[in-house]
Amino acid sequence: MRTTLVDPIPIVGAITQSLVPDVVISPGNGSSQVADKVRQARMGLRPAEGFAVFFVDDFFEAASRGVDLGADGPDLIISVPTEHEPSTTSADSFTAQVRDHSRTLPVAIVGFGGGITMDTAKAVSNLLTNGGTADRYQGWDLLPMPGVHKIGVPTISGTGAESSRTCVLSNARTGAKLGMNSKFSLFNSIVLDPTFSESVPRDQYFYTGMDTYMHCIESLGGRFRNVFADALSRESLRLVRSVFNSDDMMSFESRMDLMTASCLGGMAIAGSYVGLIHPMSAALSIVLGTHHGVANCIAMRAMKDYYPTEYEEFWAMADRQGVEIPTVNGASLTQSELDGLVASTLVHERPLSNALGLDFGRRLGSGRLMELFALL
Amino acid sequence: MRTTLVDPIPIVGAITQSLVPDVVISPGNGSSQVADKVRQARMGLRPAEGFAVFFVDDFFEAASRGVDLGADGPDLIISVPTEHEPSTTSADSFTAQVRDHSRTLPVAIVGFGGGITMDTAKAVSNLLTNGGTADRYQGWDLLPMPGVHKIGVPTISGTGAESSRTCVLSNARTGAKLGMNSKFSLFNSIVLDPTFSESVPRDQYFYTGMDTYMHCIESLGGRFRNVFADALSRESLRLVRSVFNSDDMMSFESRMDLMTASCLGGMAIAGSYVGLIHPMSAALSIVLGTHHGVANCIAMRAMKDYYPTEYEEFWAMADRQGVEIPTVNGASLTQSELDGLVASTLVHERPLSNALGLDFGRRLGSGRLMELFALL
Repeated sequence: MRTTLVDPIPIVGAITQSLVPDVVISPGNGSSQVADKVRQARMGLRPAEGFAVFFVDDFFEAASRGVDLGADGPDLIISVPTEHEPSTTSADSFTAQVRDHSRTLPVAIVGFGGGITMDTAKAVSNLLTNGGTADRYQGWDLLPMPGVHKIGVPTISGTGAESSRTCVLSNARTGAKLGMNSKFSLFNSIVLDPTFSESVPRDQYFYTGMDTYMHCIESLGGRFRNVFADALSRESLRLVRSVFNSDDMMSFESRMDLMTASCLGGMAIAGSYVGLIHPMSAALSIVLGTHHGVANCIAMRAMKDYYPTEYEEFWAMADRQGVEIPTVNGASLTQSELDGLVASTLVHERPLSNALGLDFGRRLGSGRLMELFALL
Repeated sequence: MRTTLVDPIPIVGAITQSLVPDVVISPGNGSSQVADKVRQARMGLRPAEGFAVFFVDDFFEAASRGVDLGADGPDLIISVPTEHEPSTTSADSFTAQVRDHSRTLPVAIVGFGGGITMDTAKAVSNLLTNGGTADRYQGWDLLPMPGVHKIGVPTISGTGAESSRTCVLSNARTGAKLGMNSKFSLFNSIVLDPTFSESVPRDQYFYTGMDTYMHCIESLGGRFRNVFADALSRESLRLVRSVFNSDDMMSFESRMDLMTASCLGGMAIAGSYVGLIHPMSAALSIVLGTHHGVANCIAMRAMKDYYPTEYEEFWAMADRQGVEIPTVNGASLTQSELDGLVASTLVHERPLSNALGLDFGRRLGSGRLMELFALL
């Protein structure tokens, strides 16, 4: 690790690590655990009133027909399209759908899927009790009230959405991609069962899983550090490495390990910062529409000088797993695309300061960034 | 690690990891963070009504005169004697003291100290809202209501009480030492500041810190396992080793590391089991009155055959830090003491099954146990 090569910047005041209070590890029994959690939330209500809302990833739904979600008769199941990232508009529209279904609040919201679905579930849970539209709560600690009781069930591992204290929404009006960062955006419970990640395609499994790898190496290679986040990142990284260096990255055991890594990594990132990979990756998403997980992997092509050990390690793991990382033909990007990519990277001041120091601008001008994007 | 030498017993159903939702890491600024947390809990109340109760470790209080607790004018500060372990009687009596102070509930309970003080704070918090006497809630999930908002501030590291979901109380009537094991026994927030562990005597620092070492090696060497608890234990162990193999186990940095290790270890143990050390140690506490941390270290004398690598490592760390581990003159224990020690060890069936298998009785008869106690 490069952890000794940079000068740490000491903690000023305090760093808060928010943790999901209830993590259920249930290999092979996740559905009945979800049903139990909903039943507990329903306790004391008359059955007719006690409905839960299950937001279910459309990909998971199609690929896993017949998998028991743990839903019951009165529960409302809503399919979440995963083609686009969740937005303030989609969150508002799902919230309206739940309100149309019943005049009472659901006893629980279950987010059954990947990051898009889990973030959607969190946003709707918050909006149902706080009222108003989603854009009102984008930012830090703007939610006055706890949301509806929420339960997260990841079906793909890596984003850390299951354990983060935010739900990221894009906002077409402002152009911002900003979360409802609040303690009320933590799930009340999450249920981890690798059965649910069985149907993920290999490439997607790798790209998304590597999100955890990226934010852990960025965090541990950065200047803003704290011992608690470091500990979680280190162990998360150990698990990710064991998965992607194994002979079968998608065995039941590997999927349980990656689920755990994602969860610990999501907790870690709440108390630390990413580095250079995520800003460049975010720029690819904004300018070229590349999805987050694969965009991280593509950005890794430019990381030889910045994360040299991890650069070698990453490409060895991709090679070992036989996963191809696409290219954006960086050398043939137009000047306007390059300008957009540079601008969209440089707005991420905190991660860039974390990676390169507070004077990151001197070390990463637009010329240098264009060279880096040309490598992708 | 001996992790590959035993056959794991698979998870049946589910294992739940309860985590403190809000962990504040604040090296050097803990007091103001505590004050902030109490202020947040007080928000919306008239100042006169909004008092907090600070339970403060008597040892810490004496050794750290002048240290700012973060308490304010109307707050009630109660000193907790640390000579004896907390009991149902002491918890009931502290609860009565808080009720006598005011007819309204406190806005927050702060547990400022070691395991005894933190467990006391948790118990009083639960009793104030749930009513009745402490013995009524000893056991699993018997508390119907959340307690008063509670904040934990460890001043010595190792027990994991800051992050556990229980508060252990001895009960003179039943002779049992049993916790209020409940999600309501988790602190709402904990504040970690190594400033507060500065005044701990070296020996005590080592004995208590090693509690984390013990439960992590017992958990990782056991048969009942889960990947999440394993991850937390492994990282906790890494930090403990770095502290006790360092040149200065009590440097500010080491104390921050040990605080983090204790917190992660406390979380881990909630989802796993101890092994052979803790049952023998508990027997020493019950029969001879030996305090928990040092009793673990004494029990380590008998662990050569059970945790061979860790046995060597433990004694090397004690040696390196120049800490002497007392003896109970095991060879001269009376028959009645030995009988008591054996009986008090063998009641811990779950930890013994974890260490030695479900047929532990065949491998650990009373004859063998007497031999082991004679080594102490």
